Amino acid sequence: MTDRFSFRLLETDAGARLGGIATPRGIVRTPAFMPVGTAATVKAVYPDQLKAAGADIVLANTYHLMLRPGPERIAGLGGLHAFMRWDKPILTDSGGFQVMSLAKLRKVTDDGVTFQSHIDGATHVLTPERAIEIQCLLGADIQMQLDECIELPASRDVTQRAAERSLAWGARSQRAFERLLEAGTAKPGQALFGIVQGGTDPELRQRSADALVEMSFAGNAIGGLAVGETQHTMLATLELTVRRLPADKPRYLMGVGTPIDLIESVARGADMFDCVMPTRSGRHGQAFTWAGKVNLRNARHADDPGPLDPESSCPAARDYSRAYLHHLVKSEEYLGAMLLSWANIAFYQELMQAMRAAIAEGRFAGWAAETKRRLAQRGSDP
Amino acid sequence: MTDRFSFRLLETDAGARLGGIATPRGIVRTPAFMPVGTAATVKAVYPDQLKAAGADIVLANTYHLMLRPGPERIAGLGGLHAFMRWDKPILTDSGGFQVMSLAKLRKVTDDGVTFQSHIDGATHVLTPERAIEIQCLLGADIQMQLDECIELPASRDVTQRAAERSLAWGARSQRAFERLLEAGTAKPGQALFGIVQGGTDPELRQRSADALVEMSFAGNAIGGLAVGETQHTMLATLELTVRRLPADKPRYLMGVGTPIDLIESVARGADMFDCVMPTRSGRHGQAFTWAGKVNLRNARHADDPGPLDPESSCPAARDYSRAYLHHLVKSEEYLGAMLLSWANIAFYQELMQAMRAAIAEGRFAGWAAETKRRLAQRGSDP
Repeated sequence: MTDRFSFRLLETDAGARLGGIATPRGIVRTPAFMPVGTAATVKAVYPDQLKAAGADIVLANTYHLMLRPGPERIAGLGGLHAFMRWDKPILTDSGGFQVMSLAKLRKVTDDGVTFQSHIDGATHVLTPERAIEIQCLLGADIQMQLDECIELPASRDVTQRAAERSLAWGARSQRAFERLLEAGTAKPGQALFGIVQGGTDPELRQRSADALVEMSFAGNAIGGLAVGETQHTMLATLELTVRRLPADKPRYLMGVGTPIDLIESVARGADMFDCVMPTRSGRHGQAFTWAGKVNLRNARHADDPGPLDPESSCPAARDYSRAYLHHLVKSEEYLGAMLLSWANIAFYQELMQAMRAAIAEGRFAGWAAETKRRLAQRGSDP
Repeated sequence: MTDRFSFRLLETDAGARLGGIATPRGIVRTPAFMPVGTAATVKAVYPDQLKAAGADIVLANTYHLMLRPGPERIAGLGGLHAFMRWDKPILTDSGGFQVMSLAKLRKVTDDGVTFQSHIDGATHVLTPERAIEIQCLLGADIQMQLDECIELPASRDVTQRAAERSLAWGARSQRAFERLLEAGTAKPGQALFGIVQGGTDPELRQRSADALVEMSFAGNAIGGLAVGETQHTMLATLELTVRRLPADKPRYLMGVGTPIDLIESVARGADMFDCVMPTRSGRHGQAFTWAGKVNLRNARHADDPGPLDPESSCPAARDYSRAYLHHLVKSEEYLGAMLLSWANIAFYQELMQAMRAAIAEGRFAGWAAETKRRLAQRGSDP
């Protein structure tokens, strides 16, 4: 344990990086996948199950928590870790992305964003300063600057304005964080990450990255991807952005992705990821396995006594028959969503662990090629 | 362990009975509360949690399982125990009650009941013989005769006809069970219970009970209660029925009830119970505690850092704050339903364990008076 935030790069192999982020709440082994605990709970999964699956860190959404139950309330209850019973690191986003995707009647100015809650229509204001204040109230170990997220496709002008505004908000977020550190509201082991925007425009991405690197955040995130562009475009943008980022700081690719996205992105030097896919797919009857995606709604599972994966260390994947999972999904039983979300979270952690082992042993390229082939089988489910 | 079904009465105290039902799959300590696993899952609860909470037996619904996934399918997968990963005893009802409460366009004749599935409208026939065949295919340790359930209030004629039909169906169920035993489809350690009907009419109840006792089932159930009558009427009917039932066989009061119902019914000599209340209430934000019912939707819990019950051995009741539970319930998160269902199942098991301890120590009457007082506080929630 440490009382400081630090990143250590241990190995690189075929572009992929093995490392560790040290925080006062524990080490995050990278490449790392962060399960998404939107409203202070990873949907349908117990905290103990996350830990047993190997998750070192979870993500929580500032947008949701600012609306309900409110950051001041969570602070009064001892912070987000105590509230949701998760004592390992937590990363919170800044709310920028959800304001774009969920809030109603939003209005963005240079000062910040005014929007209506999707829950009760109440008006809220999110500025770079308030986003940091909220994340400090939550007690997040890794905090994110407020950025402006735009929908793709967007014109170059719109993309550029949002990228520049995000940089300006990054600087304000940083000053706000420093003030809160001085005031003792932020804690020394907590860290603030900046976010590169710039859409899929190579030049805007590079300029944004260069400007962000100048500001010297504790970590650098790549935002505004995985919003509908092709995988090819996403990976190309990631690749050219990563080249401008320093090697000695963690790189967080926000909102990604499928298992194959993760492998491709690790191969391009990304260290951290988050995505609702494992839990959302689990609630919709889909399982991720080493043999590809399995759709448990499919009638071919109705009489199958075999588990999702007899080799898994996760009870949900190892001990329950596909026939039972099929029945639970068809019957819309809670336990179906519970078991599949758990199994998917465990699979994602197994995938990251396998990547870390392959990098450590200098066989990442071969491992990646073989694993992508296996995953592309899609479990023979359409 | 035993390869036979047997009931042993250990103590009686102020009308309450302490005993044990021995089955090849384990002992059921009585008085026993059976969590309801309608569609082969106790909603939102893992099998391991049921076991850790102290449940010796669960109930599953023949009606639901005959419609989906189908008893032949479950038999082909190794039976209901393997299917739902529950290796302790299972009691199945006969489907009669759900046909009345859930199915569409049902038509009852002396032969059986024809009805339309509430899932897909398909027509099904349930006879006493088929109800037993289904329960044998499921592999239920305790099986129930098919009975005719009526809605209350009902005329004496309707009540009498249903009671007589239920007795006739009881005899046919018994013959069917014996044939399946001879054929090896039913197993020697499995048992069939008869059901006393007769509404709330004392004379019909007594006549039904006397006739049922003549038939010498392995256990005697009291059906047709907890369907809208007052608690006073329910308990009076229970009391006069129990008087006609033999002491050396278990008595199962079907579909009951609230914690206070359970105490009152145990005081009147009932041994076994089932009810959806702990899990259904859990899904609706309500918790049962030793200080009464707690409505987690209530805003007074929003800032309460205390758990439901610091003394509970159940992590859901002991380790999570009321503030967090309130938040989860308000946010309609899976974890809210999961934690409250788990906590309620555990509370019901604690309640039964406390009753068994009180009977064993000859202090049931005092314990019951004091506990009813505590439970009636209703946790100060309206």
